[in-house]
Amino acid sequence: MSGRHARLVLSLVGEPGDPRLTGLVSELGPDAVLAALRARCDDGDLGAALAERLRAARPDDALAAAARRGIRFVVPGDEEWPVTAADLASVPPLHERGGSPVGLWLRGPLRLDEALADAVAVVGSRSATTYGAAVAGEIGATLAGAGRTVVSGAAFGIDQAAHRGALAARGPTVAVLACGVDRAYPLAHAALLDYIAEVGLVISEAAPGFAPTRIRFLARNRLIAALTRGTVVVEAAVRSGALNTANWAASLSRTLMGVPGPVTSAPSQGVHQMIRARGALLVTDGRDVLEATSQAGEFAMDRPLGAIDARDCLTPEQRQVLDAVPVRQGVEAGRIARTAGIAAGQTLAALKALKSLGLVEYGNRRWRLAAAPSRLPGTDAGGS
Amino acid sequence: MSGRHARLVLSLVGEPGDPRLTGLVSELGPDAVLAALRARCDDGDLGAALAERLRAARPDDALAAAARRGIRFVVPGDEEWPVTAADLASVPPLHERGGSPVGLWLRGPLRLDEALADAVAVVGSRSATTYGAAVAGEIGATLAGAGRTVVSGAAFGIDQAAHRGALAARGPTVAVLACGVDRAYPLAHAALLDYIAEVGLVISEAAPGFAPTRIRFLARNRLIAALTRGTVVVEAAVRSGALNTANWAASLSRTLMGVPGPVTSAPSQGVHQMIRARGALLVTDGRDVLEATSQAGEFAMDRPLGAIDARDCLTPEQRQVLDAVPVRQGVEAGRIARTAGIAAGQTLAALKALKSLGLVEYGNRRWRLAAAPSRLPGTDAGGS
Repeated sequence: MSGRHARLVLSLVGEPGDPRLTGLVSELGPDAVLAALRARCDDGDLGAALAERLRAARPDDALAAAARRGIRFVVPGDEEWPVTAADLASVPPLHERGGSPVGLWLRGPLRLDEALADAVAVVGSRSATTYGAAVAGEIGATLAGAGRTVVSGAAFGIDQAAHRGALAARGPTVAVLACGVDRAYPLAHAALLDYIAEVGLVISEAAPGFAPTRIRFLARNRLIAALTRGTVVVEAAVRSGALNTANWAASLSRTLMGVPGPVTSAPSQGVHQMIRARGALLVTDGRDVLEATSQAGEFAMDRPLGAIDARDCLTPEQRQVLDAVPVRQGVEAGRIARTAGIAAGQTLAALKALKSLGLVEYGNRRWRLAAAPSRLPGTDAGGS
Repeated sequence: MSGRHARLVLSLVGEPGDPRLTGLVSELGPDAVLAALRARCDDGDLGAALAERLRAARPDDALAAAARRGIRFVVPGDEEWPVTAADLASVPPLHERGGSPVGLWLRGPLRLDEALADAVAVVGSRSATTYGAAVAGEIGATLAGAGRTVVSGAAFGIDQAAHRGALAARGPTVAVLACGVDRAYPLAHAALLDYIAEVGLVISEAAPGFAPTRIRFLARNRLIAALTRGTVVVEAAVRSGALNTANWAASLSRTLMGVPGPVTSAPSQGVHQMIRARGALLVTDGRDVLEATSQAGEFAMDRPLGAIDARDCLTPEQRQVLDAVPVRQGVEAGRIARTAGIAAGQTLAALKALKSLGLVEYGNRRWRLAAAPSRLPGTDAGGS
């Protein structure tokens, strides 16, 4: 009996992410665990439900049936097994799910380890706003456009927007399901899942045929976090599965990121709490996410600096004079010179230069700040 | 010559927040500084501008004229002098402004030190969105309703919304101006400023008659930060005066807070940068601000927890059974028992209890999750 075969049987009879099962497999190895299960089953010493499952399991048939549908089963030691899955063995269970999966079921052309090498999870509320969906789509497209795999859960709302953004950018994307990869949940995303399986990967810890249950979503969320460098939560109500994924990301020391939104928007509340209380990194677009999940220097800081304007080109003296020009009521050059603390002749020269740059106005022997068309007086200056 | 008189003269001839002046006054005292200035003036050893100002100063006339307009001048040592202003003496200048003010000009019935005891600054963009103005108004009202003084700059946009919120809650508010307190800037806020002077305070480091210049806004911003426990920035473009105030708050070790907004909104960009790069605290409403600026325990954490629902009242066994019920396609009780790992009889009892709570549906010998009217299946559960 090979470890692969034992893992296959355990995948068919166990619950995804059952920490008792995953823990024992990590500790004793799959062969020993399966042998012990079978011995207890023969002794009548196993729970009725599990015993029945074990007796009913037809691993070779299941594998063959899966293969006919283009589904493969991968286990630790396989070339494409993602090494990051092992990190799960070292963190405590959450909501009674945990541990490294005994195996993964895959549908799609990509090699799993390569697809996940630089992957980022983009997750969020099913009841997303158009704002959240637009941001998730942009992040998905930017990541995938940079060659980074976008991992999500194929749910309504943020998940699908992230997948679709990645697909639109013709970049890699991986859907991690709570049910078997042969099933479409939600049903409305059957075509989306088929497309992802055509160009990316649809994966699950649950064997084909497994239905989506609440606890399988919780098990699935830990995989999304574990298999990626970081998790971006775009919108999430205060109690939501996305925050469950975020908790996994945090305990796995992955980069946890959140997109802010209007404080008046319920779907942003969970994200704001995450930023405030969990120290999640605030990100505003795909570039922020790239930067936060890249090796140092791979993506340079490129923060908006505001428009460059004439003010940036002034000499220190001109700037000092400009700062002394009243916003509203014009004054004579002498008063400006006194305020600026600069001699009258130099002040006048500076005022003329400022006038030629359109920064000050002159009329009736008085100087005042020009009313710039694009901004209120002093807006970019010192006004609060 | 009293320190008060020297400070009065220095306030009339110096620029607000000129760090050379404020630094010397902190070091040598106002009398010595004024005496030295006068000596250098007599020796013809003073810049022409300053010398002219000094010769033109009529301190007693200025004070009397101010008093006729209900304006008073306060200096360190006065009962109502705010002790927090002294903190400015210990931090380096920013944009060539800095130091503790030589005095402050006040208009309004409140006692300055009392008004500022628990004050919070609420500042932001002049070109605020309706979203930002609404949030600033709520924060102003909540703070003032709790007896906390709302300090701002009386500018268009966020400032006025914060003041108006405080006034609507009949709470204390203080406007800090860049020009003399006898002037209305912006002119459109003349009535607002008069009202604040009637029930709160309008204050300035600039003497009556001083015009608003860019550098005086910068000097003013440092006062807003220094005189408050913390500064909330509601909306701020990347280059904005509000961020200048925020920088002062940070260097003065005041609590720096920012209200997030849509990442697609330019006026929120500066705030997002502040939260990300400066570690500003993300706040979403007035209660958050109260909590962040109060003594420990004064305002308890009261985070939204999401609606309490029937799920919260289940036994562990019922919950385990519920977690094993499929989201969509119904299955027989036996399969649920196997998934849950709970004996058939107990599973059936749990399913019946769950049905009476409206959490599962039964039909055609099959059980499935109830489609709750208020949420998609699994939305608050494990789905991302």
